[in-house]
Amino acid sequence: MSQSKVLIAENDTVLKSIFATEMTRQIRAIDTYGTYDNLSVVEILEPFVLTKEMKREIPVIGDPDEIILSRVKGFYNAIASMIERECGLMAVPLLNLSYEGFGRVIITVGKLVVVDKSLRDVHRFGFPSLEKMKENADKILMTALGIIGAHGDVANL
Amino acid sequence: MSQSKVLIAENDTVLKSIFATEMTRQIRAIDTYGTYDNLSVVEILEPFVLTKEMKREIPVIGDPDEIILSRVKGFYNAIASMIERECGLMAVPLLNLSYEGFGRVIITVGKLVVVDKSLRDVHRFGFPSLEKMKENADKILMTALGIIGAHGDVANL
Repeated sequence: MSQSKVLIAENDTVLKSIFATEMTRQIRAIDTYGTYDNLSVVEILEPFVLTKEMKREIPVIGDPDEIILSRVKGFYNAIASMIERECGLMAVPLLNLSYEGFGRVIITVGKLVVVDKSLRDVHRFGFPSLEKMKENADKILMTALGIIGAHGDVANL
Repeated sequence: MSQSKVLIAENDTVLKSIFATEMTRQIRAIDTYGTYDNLSVVEILEPFVLTKEMKREIPVIGDPDEIILSRVKGFYNAIASMIERECGLMAVPLLNLSYEGFGRVIITVGKLVVVDKSLRDVHRFGFPSLEKMKENADKILMTALGIIGAHGDVANL
């Protein structure tokens, strides 16, 4: 995977969003060995941006490695964290990969499932641009908040 | 782990229960290589019965192996299956082991979390007797059905 192309501009406005801040925070939180300590926000988020060509180059063979898993976790942890900010209740993500890049991720608030997604080709986890990634996260967030709004009693259990 | 002691009597009435039938069915279902094809119900369920002494002998080091994981899955799959029988809605189990035998298992029905358990020392997953195992499963089942009864609208989502 070539890192020579500029995938995220230094002055991209998305970098200042709550989403980008949460993403960076979550990625750093699960970075036990401090590998990301000296990386900028752009450097941390760049691996999430994959063009079609870049995706095609990644083989979907065997189980995805720990680095990719930490990206998937980081993304959904950030969404869980944004849900908490918005509704004031604890949101707990749960990721289960069954085999060869297939899996399921859910986020629960109380006894309510607010995010439930099947995953496939996790090896190629990424988004066409930073903006698309934020859009995707915001969409999941909005759906989750809608479910919480409609079933507050179960979310509070 | 010594298998010389008789941990389950051949005429144990629990062996005829829906729980034992479901357990056997679920264990056979995830047994890809047909290892259990020639085993009796008693032989399939025996590894789930662990006396205190047997548990003490099992070291809690590293990640639990696939055989233990298939037991944990079998147990919660059986419960999910019993929930389905009782309420007529699909119940989906999701097991996540984080590290060294710690984890979380949930079962969802629609958008409702009907089972949510923290796991620890998964290496030593087992019950003092077949009866205790059934009691434990029945208790989880009853709690789940109670939640579904109280929040049928979310279970039907």
